[in-house]
Amino acid sequence: MKLNEILLKVGVKTELLSDFELEGIAPLDKASAKQISYVDQTQYLKDLEGSQAGAVLIREAHKEKVPNHIQAIIVENPHLVFAKISHFFKKPEFSGVGADAQCGNDVKIMPNAVMGKNVFIGDGTEIMAGVVISDGVKIGKNCKIYPNVVIYRDSCIGDNVIIHAGSVIGSDGFGYAHTKDGEHIKIEHNGCVIIEDDVEIGANTTIDRAVFGETRIKKGVKIDNLVQIGHNCIIGEHSIIVSQVGIAGSTTTGRNVIMGGQAGTGGHIHIGDFVMVAGRGAVGKNLPPHTKWGGHPLMELDEWMKFYVSLRRMLKKQKVNDENK
Amino acid sequence: MKLNEILLKVGVKTELLSDFELEGIAPLDKASAKQISYVDQTQYLKDLEGSQAGAVLIREAHKEKVPNHIQAIIVENPHLVFAKISHFFKKPEFSGVGADAQCGNDVKIMPNAVMGKNVFIGDGTEIMAGVVISDGVKIGKNCKIYPNVVIYRDSCIGDNVIIHAGSVIGSDGFGYAHTKDGEHIKIEHNGCVIIEDDVEIGANTTIDRAVFGETRIKKGVKIDNLVQIGHNCIIGEHSIIVSQVGIAGSTTTGRNVIMGGQAGTGGHIHIGDFVMVAGRGAVGKNLPPHTKWGGHPLMELDEWMKFYVSLRRMLKKQKVNDENK
Amino acid sequence: MKLNEILLKVGVKTELLSDFELEGIAPLDKASAKQISYVDQTQYLKDLEGSQAGAVLIREAHKEKVPNHIQAIIVENPHLVFAKISHFFKKPEFSGVGADAQCGNDVKIMPNAVMGKNVFIGDGTEIMAGVVISDGVKIGKNCKIYPNVVIYRDSCIGDNVIIHAGSVIGSDGFGYAHTKDGEHIKIEHNGCVIIEDDVEIGANTTIDRAVFGETRIKKGVKIDNLVQIGHNCIIGEHSIIVSQVGIAGSTTTGRNVIMGGQAGTGGHIHIGDFVMVAGRGAVGKNLPPHTKWGGHPLMELDEWMKFYVSLRRMLKKQKVNDENK
Repeated sequence: MKLNEILLKVGVKTELLSDFELEGIAPLDKASAKQISYVDQTQYLKDLEGSQAGAVLIREAHKEKVPNHIQAIIVENPHLVFAKISHFFKKPEFSGVGADAQCGNDVKIMPNAVMGKNVFIGDGTEIMAGVVISDGVKIGKNCKIYPNVVIYRDSCIGDNVIIHAGSVIGSDGFGYAHTKDGEHIKIEHNGCVIIEDDVEIGANTTIDRAVFGETRIKKGVKIDNLVQIGHNCIIGEHSIIVSQVGIAGSTTTGRNVIMGGQAGTGGHIHIGDFVMVAGRGAVGKNLPPHTKWGGHPLMELDEWMKFYVSLRRMLKKQKVNDENK
Repeated sequence: MKLNEILLKVGVKTELLSDFELEGIAPLDKASAKQISYVDQTQYLKDLEGSQAGAVLIREAHKEKVPNHIQAIIVENPHLVFAKISHFFKKPEFSGVGADAQCGNDVKIMPNAVMGKNVFIGDGTEIMAGVVISDGVKIGKNCKIYPNVVIYRDSCIGDNVIIHAGSVIGSDGFGYAHTKDGEHIKIEHNGCVIIEDDVEIGANTTIDRAVFGETRIKKGVKIDNLVQIGHNCIIGEHSIIVSQVGIAGSTTTGRNVIMGGQAGTGGHIHIGDFVMVAGRGAVGKNLPPHTKWGGHPLMELDEWMKFYVSLRRMLKKQKVNDENK
Repeated sequence: MKLNEILLKVGVKTELLSDFELEGIAPLDKASAKQISYVDQTQYLKDLEGSQAGAVLIREAHKEKVPNHIQAIIVENPHLVFAKISHFFKKPEFSGVGADAQCGNDVKIMPNAVMGKNVFIGDGTEIMAGVVISDGVKIGKNCKIYPNVVIYRDSCIGDNVIIHAGSVIGSDGFGYAHTKDGEHIKIEHNGCVIIEDDVEIGANTTIDRAVFGETRIKKGVKIDNLVQIGHNCIIGEHSIIVSQVGIAGSTTTGRNVIMGGQAGTGGHIHIGDFVMVAGRGAVGKNLPPHTKWGGHPLMELDEWMKFYVSLRRMLKKQKVNDENK
C-alpha cells in the first residue's frame, strides 16, 4: 500500500512523497527501507542517524535531525499517527481454520481443540479439549497444553512446556496513543511471545505479545496462576513468579529471580539475577543482582522487616511522652 | 406466581394478602405495582413515599412509614427474604442453543462457538473459536471476540469492541444476604452488562452483571488483563484500567480516569473525571476530579511521594539522637 | 515398578535394595508399606517412628533415626529425589474421552462440553458449553457449571454448587524441588480438590489440587472472581473470599472468615473462625478467632485505622518544630 494513501486516510496532509510502497512499521533501530518509524521524544533523536527506516514521523521542531536517507513526515503527534498507521498492518488472528496442523509422532489432540493455519506440534505433545491455537503457532515436544488454553498467532513454545487451563498466551499488549480529546488509539501488536523449554505456566495466567519483537519467557521459568506478564517483558532463566504477580510492559529480569505472590513491577525496569522480591513487593526501579526486597514503597528486605516495627515503637514512645507532659 | 405462595415457600408467615400476582423484584425507585421491594436501613425509608412498588418487605419498627398504596410485609430480615424471593425470578442462562443468531453482513463465526437464543451480531463482527454467547446478547458491528470469551445473557456490546481471550462478561455479581446462622443466601442478579463502542477488554478479565439495572463500560474505555469490575459499576468514557485492578460493586468513575496496575477501590465510591490513581493505590472514598492519588492508605500523590521518605528520615534522626544520649 | 529401577533412572546410586515394588509416593504419616516418603528437615524426624512407609529418602546425617521397618535411602537432597520419583506416578489427565458419563435425572449437558472417563453427574445439574471435565470427577445435584469451566481429574463437587465461567478447579499446585544449579523440578500433584455443598465460585478463579490429600472448600463458602486458592488449602464453612484474594498453599481458615478484596496470605497459616481481614490485608501469621485485621504489614484493624493518621500527625508536628527552631 502506498504511504501517500495511508497518510491521506489517517488525516495527515503532507507534500507529495516519492512513490513509497509501505510494507510495515517498526521502531527506529529495526525498521527497513520499506518501513516507517517515529520519534516522539528528544532522547531518541540520536537514533535517527543509524536507522535504516524509509520514513519517519516527527515533530516540526525535530525535522532538522532527520538524515537524508530517511523521509521526514512532519506531524503534530508522531506516536498517534504511528498508532493509526499500525492498523493497516494488523495481521488477522486466524487466516482460516485447518485440520492441517503439522504434527510429530504421538501427538494427542482431544476433541474441540481448534487450530489455525500453519500450526506445528512436536512429538509427544498433548493438546487438550477446548484449546485454541491460532495461525503460525509452533509448539515443541512433550508439551501439555491443558483445556481451554488460548495461544494467539505466531507464538512459539519450546519443549516440555506445561500450560495450565485457561491461560492466554500472546494477547495484545496494553498500548495506545492518545488524542487531544482524550481518546485512545490502539497500537496494533505484531510482535510475538516466545516460551522456552521446561517452562510451566499456571491456570488463567496471561502473557501479552510484544508490540514489536518478542515477549520471552526463558528456559525453566515457573509461573503460577493468575499472573500477568506485559508486552515485551523478558523473564530470565529459572525465575519463579508466584500467583497474582503483575509484570508491567518491557520489564526484564535476570535468572533465578523470585517474585512472591501479588508482587508487581512498573514498566521498563530491570531486575538483576537472583533477586528476591517478597510477596506484595512493588518494584519501581532497577534492582541489582543478589538483593532482597519487600514492601510498597519497596525497601531492602532487612530494612522493610524493621521499618514498621520502628514506626510502631516510635508512636508508642511519643504517646507516652505526650501523656507525661 | 402468587405472592402469598412465594412467601409461604420462603417461610414468611403473613396475614392473607390481597390476591397479588408477583411479576418480579426491584429496588424501591424502580419497582412497579406488580413487583416487590424491600427496605432494610433507616436511610431508605424516605424513598417509600415515591415508590410505585406493589409490596415492600420491611421491619416491624418501620411499618408505619409504608404509604397506603404499598402492601407492607413485616419480616425480621427484609434483605434476606428479598434474596430468597429473588430465586423465583432467576432467568435461565440458556433457554436453548440455536444456530438462529441474527447476523449482519460479513460476520465470521469460527467453529466451536456456541450461542443461545435471540442473539444478534452486527456487520463485520468476528466470533472466534470457543466463544460462548448466551440468550439475548447483542453485539454491534466490527467487533472482535477472541477465543473462549464467555458473554452471559442479555449483555449488550457496542460497535468496534475488542474482547480478548478468556474474559467473562456478565457473570453474577457477588451479593448475598446473611442468615442468623452465618449462611449466605444468593441474591439473583437479573441486571445486565452494557459495553459501549470502542471499548477494548484484555484477557481473562471479569465484568459482573448488575443485580438490577446495569453495569456499564462507557465509550472508549480500555481495560487490561485480569481486571475485576464488580456489579453495577460504571466506568466513565475513555478511562484506562490497567492489569489486575479491582473495582468493587457500585463504584462509578468519571471520564478519562486512570487506574494503575493492581489498584483497587471499595464499593459505592465515585471517582471524578480525569483522576489518576497510581499502581497499587487503594481507593476508599470519593475522589474529586483532576486529582492524583497513590498508596494504601490512599494519599494525594504528592504527599505519598514524600511520606515514606520523611518517615525514613525521621527514623534515622531518632536513631542518631538515641545513640547520642 | 521396582524401586531399584526408579532410583537408577533418577540417578541415585544405592546398595541393592530388597525386591521392592513401589506403588507410589506419600508423606510420612500417610505412606503405606508399598510407598516411599522423604524427610528433609530435622523437625520431621520424629514422624519416622510412627510411619508405615516402605522406604524413606533421607540425608546421611539423619540415617540413624530411621526405624528398622523402613528402608532408608541415603541421598543428598531428599526433596529433590522425591520430586523426581513423583514423575513415575503422575496420572494422565484424561485416560480417554467418553460420552459415558453417568448422569442422574434431568441433567443438562450443552454442546461442546467434553468429559473424560468415569465422570458422575448428579440430578438436575447443568453443564454448559465449553466445560471440560476430566477423568474421575464427581459432581453433585443441582449444580450449575458455567461455560468454559475446567475441572481437573478426581475433583469432587457437592450439591447446589455454582461455578462461574472460566474458573479452573484442580490445576496442579505450585510446588518444585530445586537443584544445585537453580533448576526447579516439578513435584507431581496427585491430590484432589473437594468442593462441598452450596459453594459458589466466581469467574476465572483458580483452585489448585493438593500435592497429596486434598484442597477443600467447605460447605456454603462463597468465592468471588479471580481468586487464587493454593494447594492443600482448607477454606472453612460459610467463609467469604472477595475478588482477587490469594490464599497461599496449605493455609487453612475456620468458619465464616471474611477476606476483603485483594487480600492475601502466606502459606501454612491458620486463620481462626469469624476472622475478618480488610481488603488488601496481608496475612503472614496465624490469626486467633473473632479478630479483625488490615494492612501490610498486618495490624489489628483498630490499630491500622489509627496508625497512618498518627504518623501523618507526627510528621506534621515535627515539621512545625523544625520550622520553629
